Amino acid sequence: MGRVTQRRTIARVDVGPAAAGEVRVEVKVGPDTLVAEEPLEIRVGVAGAPRPPLAVTMRTPGDDLDLAIGFLLTEGIIRSAGDVRTAQLCAGDQEPNTYNVVDVALAAGVPAPEVDPARNFYTTSSCGVCGKASIDAVRTRSLFDVGGDGVRVAPAVLAGMPDALREGQRAFRTTGGLHAAGLFTAGGELVCLREDVGRHNAVDKIVGWAVRQGRLPLAGHVLMVSGRASFELCQKAWMAGIPVLAAVSAPSTLAVDLAAEAGLTLVGFLRGRTFNVYAGAQRVVGLEQAPVGPVARSAGATAVTGPGPGSRP
Amino acid sequence: MGRVTQRRTIARVDVGPAAAGEVRVEVKVGPDTLVAEEPLEIRVGVAGAPRPPLAVTMRTPGDDLDLAIGFLLTEGIIRSAGDVRTAQLCAGDQEPNTYNVVDVALAAGVPAPEVDPARNFYTTSSCGVCGKASIDAVRTRSLFDVGGDGVRVAPAVLAGMPDALREGQRAFRTTGGLHAAGLFTAGGELVCLREDVGRHNAVDKIVGWAVRQGRLPLAGHVLMVSGRASFELCQKAWMAGIPVLAAVSAPSTLAVDLAAEAGLTLVGFLRGRTFNVYAGAQRVVGLEQAPVGPVARSAGATAVTGPGPGSRP
Repeated sequence: MGRVTQRRTIARVDVGPAAAGEVRVEVKVGPDTLVAEEPLEIRVGVAGAPRPPLAVTMRTPGDDLDLAIGFLLTEGIIRSAGDVRTAQLCAGDQEPNTYNVVDVALAAGVPAPEVDPARNFYTTSSCGVCGKASIDAVRTRSLFDVGGDGVRVAPAVLAGMPDALREGQRAFRTTGGLHAAGLFTAGGELVCLREDVGRHNAVDKIVGWAVRQGRLPLAGHVLMVSGRASFELCQKAWMAGIPVLAAVSAPSTLAVDLAAEAGLTLVGFLRGRTFNVYAGAQRVVGLEQAPVGPVARSAGATAVTGPGPGSRP
Repeated sequence: MGRVTQRRTIARVDVGPAAAGEVRVEVKVGPDTLVAEEPLEIRVGVAGAPRPPLAVTMRTPGDDLDLAIGFLLTEGIIRSAGDVRTAQLCAGDQEPNTYNVVDVALAAGVPAPEVDPARNFYTTSSCGVCGKASIDAVRTRSLFDVGGDGVRVAPAVLAGMPDALREGQRAFRTTGGLHAAGLFTAGGELVCLREDVGRHNAVDKIVGWAVRQGRLPLAGHVLMVSGRASFELCQKAWMAGIPVLAAVSAPSTLAVDLAAEAGLTLVGFLRGRTFNVYAGAQRVVGLEQAPVGPVARSAGATAVTGPGPGSRP
């Protein structure tokens, strides 16, 4: 792409150890590679009529059609690739083309997204009155029953995913500045990896890729993300039919509540050989009976020993 | 508040070292403290008339009036505390009150935010056609000339900020799940710290606090954030008149370009005793001549030695 990273001149500073009140500051000036961030405007409407902008997201350029289609799917505006008549990077009102506008014409019979005129903004699933209403909004739009997905994942397979994700992150290695999302099989095979300045964009790029490949629902898969697990990421996993979401860092309360409602398995603090399970523990081998969930219980401990289907060599 | 964190039952899993093909998995089930995430709807309009929702953000409850006012200031909708007639947590359409709606009545003569009817959504500063247009939109709205701020910060003072920020993070210690933003003096004194599931919310809470205290512009201050430095965070610093933005992680290209345009000092990868300077190096003691900026130059090195005003003991 060429636009995923750019070069800038920076100063690297090392303050050095303080000794006897004296500070030695070393400064090196030179080129550095940064991750690109640019706005993307998504326009949606019916064919043959002007299509208004629906949303703008700050994203890392690349896989923009996947990003737009993944966004439309996870927001419940389209249900499959067949709901899209055309999707293209267009010039918008710009001359020359900035490649920052994706124009989506919906297929015949697919209703354009409702923009509530009283509210004057596009109402996402996080609809603003309370967490329960936000969860209800996602349930209403969800296409797939992830709760019924019988896939099971071995702890050792989960533990191996952070390394696999990091190894696949090409742009991160040069910039240190991107989030990543990876789609894995239950056996730990990395199927699709995307990087972006925003985690939600990285996930939308994966979902859009899967939509265009006709792979939805993504039953039996694990979605792993860098950073935290928010409500929004659980929403996207549910909308794409992914039964397991794993994050490097902490989940929020609303992410756990949405996962419990969806029947989604939610894993957090997945680092090295340890992780936490916040919802849907029955899909993790050895945790079939672990009573995790919204209500805090008193502590207990069990140990499970065995080679397991997902042992790492 | 009580709503900043909540308890859930989780399973902690340790896969253990693999030995001879056998995996020993240890599982402990018990209570854990998670960071709360709830939607906040911000309603804005003139007094004496129904006020429509302008935006919804997923945030950690607490300091919600500051969050709303900081958002309105950094989006250019208000210019000072005097532009707000009343701001209150209201029930919205909910019974009982969820405390997830902030209603802001603007003072007489302050125009309500423009919602472009052709676009059907509130146009934030990231206006969607290209990075340059996004930067131009912020420049048009900016109230303060941060480029003219003559403050200077010692490298050792910057190097001490991550520890100060972490020490102040009460909720992070119990949940591991929050972003933080801290407002520091140029001498390294922590003036205000806020935590939230979203970095942009943590910054808006600080800015709203400063607006209500009559402290804007925040000349001579340093804003430090956990995580990455995005376009949006540089925008907020500029709008609040903060001359130095420092981040624990990487900046994006558009963040650097906006900082250069604003005359903002942008520091990234601030960890331990090292950091990078991407724009506005003249405010960092010893880096007055460092030619950092949008164009990549060839490498060079200089060393600066001296006790400096900000030496750490």
